[in-house]
Amino acid sequence: MNILSINDERLLRHLRSLGEIGRDGNGRLVRLAASDNEKLGRDQFVAWLVETGLDVAIDRIGNIFGIWRPEGVSDNAPLMLGSHIDTVINAGIYDGCYGVISGLEVIATLKEAGFQPMRPVVVAAFTNEEGVRYAPDMMGSLVYAGGLSTQDALASIGTDGSVLGEELARIGYAGEHEPGFLRPHAYIELHIEQGPVLEREGILLGAVESLQGISWQKVTIVGDANHAGTTPISMRRDAGYAAARVITFLRDRAKASSTPTVATVGCIEFEPNAINIIPSRATFTVDLRDPDEDRLKQEEAVLSAFLEMLSQEEQVIISVEKMARFEPVRFDESIVNAIENAASVRGFAHKRMTSGAGHDAQMIARIAPAAMIFVPSKDGVSHNPKEYTSDQDLVAGANILLDVVQKIVAAG
Amino acid sequence: MNILSINDERLLRHLRSLGEIGRDGNGRLVRLAASDNEKLGRDQFVAWLVETGLDVAIDRIGNIFGIWRPEGVSDNAPLMLGSHIDTVINAGIYDGCYGVISGLEVIATLKEAGFQPMRPVVVAAFTNEEGVRYAPDMMGSLVYAGGLSTQDALASIGTDGSVLGEELARIGYAGEHEPGFLRPHAYIELHIEQGPVLEREGILLGAVESLQGISWQKVTIVGDANHAGTTPISMRRDAGYAAARVITFLRDRAKASSTPTVATVGCIEFEPNAINIIPSRATFTVDLRDPDEDRLKQEEAVLSAFLEMLSQEEQVIISVEKMARFEPVRFDESIVNAIENAASVRGFAHKRMTSGAGHDAQMIARIAPAAMIFVPSKDGVSHNPKEYTSDQDLVAGANILLDVVQKIVAAG
Repeated sequence: MNILSINDERLLRHLRSLGEIGRDGNGRLVRLAASDNEKLGRDQFVAWLVETGLDVAIDRIGNIFGIWRPEGVSDNAPLMLGSHIDTVINAGIYDGCYGVISGLEVIATLKEAGFQPMRPVVVAAFTNEEGVRYAPDMMGSLVYAGGLSTQDALASIGTDGSVLGEELARIGYAGEHEPGFLRPHAYIELHIEQGPVLEREGILLGAVESLQGISWQKVTIVGDANHAGTTPISMRRDAGYAAARVITFLRDRAKASSTPTVATVGCIEFEPNAINIIPSRATFTVDLRDPDEDRLKQEEAVLSAFLEMLSQEEQVIISVEKMARFEPVRFDESIVNAIENAASVRGFAHKRMTSGAGHDAQMIARIAPAAMIFVPSKDGVSHNPKEYTSDQDLVAGANILLDVVQKIVAAG
Repeated sequence: MNILSINDERLLRHLRSLGEIGRDGNGRLVRLAASDNEKLGRDQFVAWLVETGLDVAIDRIGNIFGIWRPEGVSDNAPLMLGSHIDTVINAGIYDGCYGVISGLEVIATLKEAGFQPMRPVVVAAFTNEEGVRYAPDMMGSLVYAGGLSTQDALASIGTDGSVLGEELARIGYAGEHEPGFLRPHAYIELHIEQGPVLEREGILLGAVESLQGISWQKVTIVGDANHAGTTPISMRRDAGYAAARVITFLRDRAKASSTPTVATVGCIEFEPNAINIIPSRATFTVDLRDPDEDRLKQEEAVLSAFLEMLSQEEQVIISVEKMARFEPVRFDESIVNAIENAASVRGFAHKRMTSGAGHDAQMIARIAPAAMIFVPSKDGVSHNPKEYTSDQDLVAGANILLDVVQKIVAAG
């Protein structure tokens, strides 16, 4: 059998063209959701959809769909590919855009090759995935999956005081379709890893089988603000020391474990924060993630027990505030298998992995079988102009997407 | 032999009267050095000196001396007692004032009893011990001991933009005596502990044999700011974790040790200080204190070696900035013995101890044999309206000072 491959030159050209759209005066890529800059990106994407002969549909939350409806199969549920084209401030060119441009490229390649699918294939660009201008992030796919009402989402107030619904209307992307109007047969999202694992391990391709659950907590420890010179160590109730104990406990436990659990303390504050005064109060955040819900619960319980023990041992008062909690997402086993098989056929080193970041795929997974494909990110850097994936890896990932799409739509 | 005792009622009345002078509109005690409020306190103190029949002398840095010059011995070097009457903002009434008022009370008691000393006895109130308005702290005694030129000290600019020399002239305390004009035979300072040791151990009296050396350092750790979700624990360069390791190392080491070393991390800052980003930079202070210079140096070296090891182990870059360094002070053994003996004779529980805070005695120790006497501070609290020592303990401390003074000036 002759294996199809995507048009490398066109894929990379589209990706780089989109990456030049929405630069600010300092050359920074800033394509915030529903902004003037993002309108330019949307317009370009829609132009390419039209050029490829796809039907263009916009829904009420501004999600853009390019639909390939081959004759005779348009009543079947479509296979959906996609991601997002909005960006953070001072972004790289790959995050989101790579998945959208690759979806388009796969459809273009199949059309050009005269391939006859058993169901429609759709490429989607979801609104406001980044969540920089409007909260929450992954909004377009969340609304599409029915997790947030369209009305509430459109009423979102931006960090600049704007209203999302008004902004979408202003830039011409307040569509008429109801979000969810196309119920996907399946959904596949190709994305850069945004982490260092594939690059460090020298593996080309990640078959993403799950997306981590997240537990965010804020811990406050209260002790006594005594004089650093006159208070013997044995008489101290040092909130800063107790906080340090939690930080080392979480990290040492995660490091010693063979599980993928990650634990991070990213924010901290001491009071009174004076060089010669023992901290009376320490406040810090705990970010726990795990692809397995039972294990995430277990890690939360272990932290809670440690805090209880520490409170006794150091005679400090500890309180915990839950800030956010998302259960892990399990992706569809048969699609993950198909990704692995396709990589094996092409001779690409591959591994099953977990996504540490959030993606539109986790929302669409609520209404359809879904999975993701990762390609390496240099140094794991993302949300930054230094974000980089080699051309070779970008092409390889798009070809795997092509193979998996062929398999799914050929099966009918 | 009939043991003399001080006049309890007068001691406490003077102390409380002085504690009412310099209250602000909110009832807070604020007698900052060379301020209008402090002038009122100085005037009251001078009035009591005159009332007690002492010669009043003011030196160029504003230190106040009440000199008892019995006939025939005025050529001998004087025994000096003292402390300071300036306060922090929202102070308690004991810090400093207790030593000054007790010195005055001891002289008054001896005079009234017809005691014939072999040398003059002087009570001193040193300028700007607290260092809140002008830096450095312990300024008056430092200048008196020759550690800072009078000219430089008088040129100090206050936190309010004022010039110390001008303020002293304005309030009438720019004296004519050269600092150091009376070279003491010995110096004794009675003070509240400002720490919790005596109270917790149920001991009435501290014979202070040393004053801790201080080492202040600022440590900066640089790692990588990666995504908290996508970066496996094994691939992290977490500056926050490394900082926590230093905090627990210092504290656990000090706690496990039988030495009086204390180590405190009072200030900390993470960058970028975001819940879902691994800290790329952690900056914190280290306050190390020990009454023994060799041990303090050893602790600095141990910290330095630990940072070196940590830098390798966590692949982080660590830099250290020295902020302040003072060698420990050894007080005079014979005076410390005299304090212990006096306490034993009166049946007071006592112990030798180290001062964790700085005091005028450490400056005067440069030019004369010196020592300190501590009485308990409730909960170790100081620089705060909650500062408290019971009347009984205040009287007991002053009587020990009386006994030691008698012994020293009787010996000639």
